Amino acid sequence: MTLHDTIRLIGDQALAASRKLVNLSTKKKNAILNAMADALDQQRDLIKEANAQDLAQAAAAGLSAAMLDRLTLTDARIDAMTAGVREVARLPDPVGKKIWKRTRPNGLMIEKRRVPLGVIAIIYESRPNVTADAAVLCTKTSNAVILRGGKEALHSNLAIARALQEGGASAGLPKHAVQLIETIDREAVRELVQLDDRVDVVIPRGGESLIRAVVENARVPVLKHYKGVCHVFVDATAALDQALAIVENAKCQRPSACNAMETLLVHQSVAAAFLPMLGALAARRKLELRGCKATCALLPSCKPAAPQDWTTEYLDLILNVRVVKDLKAAVTHINTYSSHHSDAIVTADARSAKRFMKEVDSAAVYVNASTRFTDGGEFGMGAEMGISTDKLHARGPMGLEELTTYKYVVAGSGQIR
Amino acid sequence: MTLHDTIRLIGDQALAASRKLVNLSTKKKNAILNAMADALDQQRDLIKEANAQDLAQAAAAGLSAAMLDRLTLTDARIDAMTAGVREVARLPDPVGKKIWKRTRPNGLMIEKRRVPLGVIAIIYESRPNVTADAAVLCTKTSNAVILRGGKEALHSNLAIARALQEGGASAGLPKHAVQLIETIDREAVRELVQLDDRVDVVIPRGGESLIRAVVENARVPVLKHYKGVCHVFVDATAALDQALAIVENAKCQRPSACNAMETLLVHQSVAAAFLPMLGALAARRKLELRGCKATCALLPSCKPAAPQDWTTEYLDLILNVRVVKDLKAAVTHINTYSSHHSDAIVTADARSAKRFMKEVDSAAVYVNASTRFTDGGEFGMGAEMGISTDKLHARGPMGLEELTTYKYVVAGSGQIR
Repeated sequence: MTLHDTIRLIGDQALAASRKLVNLSTKKKNAILNAMADALDQQRDLIKEANAQDLAQAAAAGLSAAMLDRLTLTDARIDAMTAGVREVARLPDPVGKKIWKRTRPNGLMIEKRRVPLGVIAIIYESRPNVTADAAVLCTKTSNAVILRGGKEALHSNLAIARALQEGGASAGLPKHAVQLIETIDREAVRELVQLDDRVDVVIPRGGESLIRAVVENARVPVLKHYKGVCHVFVDATAALDQALAIVENAKCQRPSACNAMETLLVHQSVAAAFLPMLGALAARRKLELRGCKATCALLPSCKPAAPQDWTTEYLDLILNVRVVKDLKAAVTHINTYSSHHSDAIVTADARSAKRFMKEVDSAAVYVNASTRFTDGGEFGMGAEMGISTDKLHARGPMGLEELTTYKYVVAGSGQIR
Repeated sequence: MTLHDTIRLIGDQALAASRKLVNLSTKKKNAILNAMADALDQQRDLIKEANAQDLAQAAAAGLSAAMLDRLTLTDARIDAMTAGVREVARLPDPVGKKIWKRTRPNGLMIEKRRVPLGVIAIIYESRPNVTADAAVLCTKTSNAVILRGGKEALHSNLAIARALQEGGASAGLPKHAVQLIETIDREAVRELVQLDDRVDVVIPRGGESLIRAVVENARVPVLKHYKGVCHVFVDATAALDQALAIVENAKCQRPSACNAMETLLVHQSVAAAFLPMLGALAARRKLELRGCKATCALLPSCKPAAPQDWTTEYLDLILNVRVVKDLKAAVTHINTYSSHHSDAIVTADARSAKRFMKEVDSAAVYVNASTRFTDGGEFGMGAEMGISTDKLHARGPMGLEELTTYKYVVAGSGQIR
């Protein structure tokens, strides 16, 4: 069979499975998820063997220590993975939920009801735990899923997918509800994202180049975020100690996260007081600063920022700093350079806060808190499938509800127009 | 200026206007809408003159009587258009609406709040009233709009847009909030739907070929429906008189509508009783029938259906008819051939009804009612921008709420992770 036909067959099988998944009750789905967790637990030796094979190949191929770490499955990580599956079983099921119901003057009863999307394709990179995370979120929402992981994690992903499939099947999961693409041919992704008559949405998770490649080729709708270029604006009325704590947290607590800050904006009226505090923090945390002219004048240790720095996601201990005239200039900077992910203001002025929340066009807007909270768990959504900076369908963290759509169910007694 | 630069400038202007629109109160927006209605009313002679120019060109170009009728603006139609604008002013404003609000254990207050999408592009065909409909729905939801109508209606559209802009400006509508593309060059559409850093969504309204051309070229997300291939299934327990009334209404009341029925499915156990009733209806309403083998055997006047008939939207008095073994076969037929728009079952069996509603994967699913009710007004949503058969973001009729997205607004007191 050609690759083209193989991927179409996987699509056909997923679509057929999705037609069966709509009939599973929440209780049944939760039993399936717990059986999946049991199977992961029972098959942990097989999973670790497969992982060792991937790790050996990756080491031979010269992958970085950070990449090898992301790829590694320890007992603790397998425990966390199975605990995550059981946690999803405990979350409320959005499928079947009534969004609204109304009776029209002609007697028609119209209900807007949450239903599964159908078939979801997930394309991801090296971390093999995504295989389990993505599969269980889709199963919980009665969606069929097609998984495509990174080639360096292929054996690990296959072992995890097999455990999920076997455990799921033992509790009534329809065949082909969870499928993993087994070829490492890159062309498979291209074929997959073209299947708009079988796949309802594709969610790419990984670096910007992966996501751009998916968008470029996709005929299927894509939910995504390219990157997180997040801002903190220290307003004229900010409590400067609080501002410094937020800046330190947003930049340094986990610089590799998409909700970490890349650019600090400082109101001109507090620049002379705040920038020396920032300079001391930078020295203490080994943080490289790249500033505008006004910043460099106040902080001689600061390098000048280049134009492209304002749109760069460093994922590292580097921070852009710009002194701005006022709130309006801060909002304009953010709306121009932000990736529309998460942006914060530190202020004691309620009017500034309100205006910032209204005018900043981002998925999450913060007042007096770190941008690092943009996360499904932190937002109380339970698990998350990723974060969207799109405006259509899902914006911000994508939980279970974001993996559903709705239909109108209309009950009549012979009504005609 | 090149066409490329012209369209980019229109995009820049729309984006700038969208930044101002977020600060308009509902009261202000309603005043703007009423001022738009006043201007349409006051400028009706200019609008009728422009329309006469379009009609003369269209007649010279040999457009069909149906096309000329669609293009014509009478006083009654201008009255309906202004009444429609005032009606939108009276509808509730979804912008700013709280979807949920929660306080997290760490004290963060998170609100999920409806906000405008930003910039919406609407691409449509001959009916000039769409210019007003689309512009006011976008204005009501604080979105900037870029309009691109059919070339045959250009003068009418320009006159209507000018009235809306002038009326709107007199009540505080930001400049460039409503823009109409004035060139008839087709390349303009291609440029427009590529502007994914300025335009948030494109909504094409018109025939399938227009919509396919937009989707083919779009980098901006598209909300759309290609066509309406809707079904009615007459179940074993259907009250046959009720079924016949629903069939007549769904097919004949307005065959050119996208929610009109194209295919009738009949349970084999009632085929012998129902098909002669259908035959009499067909004779009375001059309805052409195209049937499966079993149908043709029972109704000798029926032509055999060709394979492509099952996926054809006739928009005319032609109906496909198929006898099916049972509910399962009906659902399979619908999920295979339907455009996932609107499908109905006629049944007295609550279990069949429930199963049909669950298993049929369409935007609107009906029990004992005509498919013709799929419409924003009939669903109680007020106005509608069109109907979507997509599953992401908006499914079914798109009202005001579907022209919004949401953001998370997070208020803290110095929280860090």
